[in-house]
Amino acid sequence: MTVLDPSAGYFTLINTFTVEPKRAQALLAHLSKATEELFLHAPGFVSANLHMSRDRRHVTNYAQWRSQEDYDAAVKNPETQAHMRDAAALASTFNPIFYDLIETHLAEPAA
Amino acid sequence: MTVLDPSAGYFTLINTFTVEPKRAQALLAHLSKATEELFLHAPGFVSANLHMSRDRRHVTNYAQWRSQEDYDAAVKNPETQAHMRDAAALASTFNPIFYDLIETHLAEPAA
Repeated sequence: MTVLDPSAGYFTLINTFTVEPKRAQALLAHLSKATEELFLHAPGFVSANLHMSRDRRHVTNYAQWRSQEDYDAAVKNPETQAHMRDAAALASTFNPIFYDLIETHLAEPAA
Repeated sequence: MTVLDPSAGYFTLINTFTVEPKRAQALLAHLSKATEELFLHAPGFVSANLHMSRDRRHVTNYAQWRSQEDYDAAVKNPETQAHMRDAAALASTFNPIFYDLIETHLAEPAA
């Protein structure tokens, strides 16, 4: 399970792909395969969390890395560059944004 | 702590606000206050997770609800509508997208 905890201090990448609905499943499968093959053993990789929008027009990866430096090093790999070109070709647009998780608010447990 | 687990079956809302960097902190504070006052006790609310982009041009809420019906009911509340207008006034644009979490990939623990 992925845990969101501001005190972990992770680098968070949210990458939102816009996609034709008929290609959404193929894009998600491509991101899944690339995660397993390229990122899972990369130094500093923590998690990737793949989301499909209910209208199938967006596929979004919520990814955690130990640091931005670890992420930068992973994406310099030529195999990763090839994967990113393939993902971009399946999508209409993509928009990676680099974040820090600042606050988490949780529902209070029922009494 | 927030947990991302596909088997939970939550409705996931990722709302990306574009903002002038000088207003980013005020927007995050507004979202934080509204979460505490309006959502924390709403039926079906699970979590809100507030992110600031490293360039301060985006503030993003990754929110979990038990179901889309619970979220729809919460946003019909007139106080929630007023909050959303205030948040929209602080931001340049906002883009709420409705998702399901499909897959989570975790780094394997070091041997």
